[in-house]
Amino acid sequence: MKNVEYWQPELETMPRQQLEALQVEKLRRTIDLCLQSPFYKRVLGERGITSDTIKTIDDVRRLPFTTKQDLRENYPFGLVGGNMKDAIRIHSSSGTTGNPTVVTYSRHDIESWANMIARSMYMVGCRDTDVFQNSSGYGMFTGGLGFQYGAEKLGATTVPAAAGNSKRQIMFIRDFGTTCLHAIPSYAIRLAEVFHEEGIDPRSTKLHTLFIGAEPHTDEQRRRIERLLGVKAYNSFGMTEMNGPGVAFECQEQNGMHLWEDNYILEIIDPDTLEPVPDGEIGEMVLTTLDRTMMPILRYRTHDLTRILPGDCPCGRTHRRIDRIKGRTDDMFIIKGVNVFPMQVEKILVKYPGLGSNYLITLDSEGDNDVMTVDVELDGLNTDVYPELQRMTKDIQRALKDEILLTPRVRLVKKGSLPQSEGKAVRVKDLRPGRG
Amino acid sequence: MKNVEYWQPELETMPRQQLEALQVEKLRRTIDLCLQSPFYKRVLGERGITSDTIKTIDDVRRLPFTTKQDLRENYPFGLVGGNMKDAIRIHSSSGTTGNPTVVTYSRHDIESWANMIARSMYMVGCRDTDVFQNSSGYGMFTGGLGFQYGAEKLGATTVPAAAGNSKRQIMFIRDFGTTCLHAIPSYAIRLAEVFHEEGIDPRSTKLHTLFIGAEPHTDEQRRRIERLLGVKAYNSFGMTEMNGPGVAFECQEQNGMHLWEDNYILEIIDPDTLEPVPDGEIGEMVLTTLDRTMMPILRYRTHDLTRILPGDCPCGRTHRRIDRIKGRTDDMFIIKGVNVFPMQVEKILVKYPGLGSNYLITLDSEGDNDVMTVDVELDGLNTDVYPELQRMTKDIQRALKDEILLTPRVRLVKKGSLPQSEGKAVRVKDLRPGRG
Repeated sequence: MKNVEYWQPELETMPRQQLEALQVEKLRRTIDLCLQSPFYKRVLGERGITSDTIKTIDDVRRLPFTTKQDLRENYPFGLVGGNMKDAIRIHSSSGTTGNPTVVTYSRHDIESWANMIARSMYMVGCRDTDVFQNSSGYGMFTGGLGFQYGAEKLGATTVPAAAGNSKRQIMFIRDFGTTCLHAIPSYAIRLAEVFHEEGIDPRSTKLHTLFIGAEPHTDEQRRRIERLLGVKAYNSFGMTEMNGPGVAFECQEQNGMHLWEDNYILEIIDPDTLEPVPDGEIGEMVLTTLDRTMMPILRYRTHDLTRILPGDCPCGRTHRRIDRIKGRTDDMFIIKGVNVFPMQVEKILVKYPGLGSNYLITLDSEGDNDVMTVDVELDGLNTDVYPELQRMTKDIQRALKDEILLTPRVRLVKKGSLPQSEGKAVRVKDLRPGRG
Repeated sequence: MKNVEYWQPELETMPRQQLEALQVEKLRRTIDLCLQSPFYKRVLGERGITSDTIKTIDDVRRLPFTTKQDLRENYPFGLVGGNMKDAIRIHSSSGTTGNPTVVTYSRHDIESWANMIARSMYMVGCRDTDVFQNSSGYGMFTGGLGFQYGAEKLGATTVPAAAGNSKRQIMFIRDFGTTCLHAIPSYAIRLAEVFHEEGIDPRSTKLHTLFIGAEPHTDEQRRRIERLLGVKAYNSFGMTEMNGPGVAFECQEQNGMHLWEDNYILEIIDPDTLEPVPDGEIGEMVLTTLDRTMMPILRYRTHDLTRILPGDCPCGRTHRRIDRIKGRTDDMFIIKGVNVFPMQVEKILVKYPGLGSNYLITLDSEGDNDVMTVDVELDGLNTDVYPELQRMTKDIQRALKDEILLTPRVRLVKKGSLPQSEGKAVRVKDLRPGRG
């Protein structure tokens, strides 16, 4: 049964020309706001850019790019153009060393974000009669509160289960009649296993729809999740810098994710020439916020590789569709829904005098669980002072947990036992199926 | 500097007579709603109770009590009087064995709850210019989303830090200019320690106000927290059955917690005779919801022992004040903010054939950390099959974690080594200072 209704019919099916006019209008307002922020005041000022620079949507290319580095160097509030008195929330990436990426939201921003998620959920058939369970971590991670507010805006009955405790998740699914679930793909598979272990057929529950995202996965994995749990699984794309989830979302056609162009300007560029690539070709996604009143971001280099899927979608929505994320232009990797840079690991390791500088991060799957292992060479310390090494291993593990918010395996290995690289060191080996 | 403003002046300073008239009106509406719920339809029907039963506030005593057992037996939605289509959230107590306590909220209920928390925060001087950090667990635990929505309603800038990672909490406090923090008392002390370890003087931050609750503590502990962190710490009382936090809250006088009587009817009864005790005398607190449109609860026996503090409060609020919780009438205990019944532990232990029926839960403090240890006697198994016992210990620990959401120490001990009790077994030994 196809859903032929829209949450916001006019906006979702707006003719392209009108949609682009709306984008121009909102971009001009965004630039006015940018000029109130210390960071953009400087970088736009240097270039003489004002809202008058923008006449057509192509003029977005006259604006400078913004990078994660810009966010870090202007931590925490250097990109805020609104009045901090109007800020009602802060979200932040993980990390205690270096500066985390921080986003500040006004009440308007929180409501606009919730509305994008409500629109996305409605698009795949979710209604106020549905029971929505969220297995995301809550707190600073945007997958928790983001979906919470969106599902409440939709009027669904929300079950804020948060991460972990699969038996309890299943108990809630059964007892509360959960129909829709938000989960990272690897956790969806884990849940299917626990259903099996408990002797419960997921098809005996009311669960029918899954929202999966925040972790790279293949279409085969999606189909497997659908088979195992007897559900439809829809891809979701988001990132904290752009609010969180709700940036792009699949419709019932499952043929790519509609990027909500009334709230974001989408560009796909060649990461070397920085010029746009034609529709259908893979490049780096660049996004500009259009509906934020606290912290606008212009032409953010996401480092995510994807492409615009050419052609119209049978669902009738005019917002263009992006393909699933094909990879990264930097060395960031995603494990269990958490973004990790090798630099974060390195920053911890250099604090230990007994360690050498050679280390290797291995990502692998065990069953359906992703596992991260950090091997690091000893230097000065011997492998025979066992109790000391054991203490150190635990200590490093704890420090890494504090930094990246998940606990990797840590192995201290003999000097010279890791592969030596000439030139740029290879720090990450991704052995997970379909990646690396 | 005293705060002499009110969030809702008319309601907070309403003359008693008028406040009681408002309670009568809201109680009558609540009874009408109760009659829509399967549970109350039966128990009120049997007694011939309708909203007409209530003429004056004293008529509340003509209503039957509601117990935790009633909530469990009518799990999950037997007390719901509203239309489930209007439900937008479910919160639940911990536990996967037995039925957890579940509360269902309409949009009105969530907004009313947020308003109570905003009112409480405003009462101690919090404003929309403050930065509020929440170190509660989020998800199903009401301390997370409860304070989140309340602080956003107030217009404060919220930092949803969630539980744990003290270094990160301190980083947020410094970098985001956090002024107000919600924490359980033992965690507030832990944070003070980490400040010290990091060589940071908490007085060099902007932190000035703490909300502490969800865990029994003495006034000496409160004063210690205030000294260690250089803040004012205000007591907060709440429970999931009554929404969560925001039921009663201290004002700047710090002389007991104003219970928000426009939203709850407060009774203190003798737990044996079930008759009211005079003001100033300790008894069991009984609460009735007055502002819920989804799941009303009449005369809920909280099992918390406290008393009404006689006299008027200099702050001008007319809502009566309750003393800090003095203990429980049942065997529930609270550790690290989590409510635990010995029965939850017992339910896990009986699943293991090699164990005897004698067990003992010991609660103790190590430094400022509370620790829970479960000793259980072996029966049939010997202490010499070490690897097997080790596996079993881990297994029990994991099952207990699933059930009570915190990890206790587990020790399998020789048969006969725990104290034998004649009559009612003593299952809990609370060695923490100021308790037991």
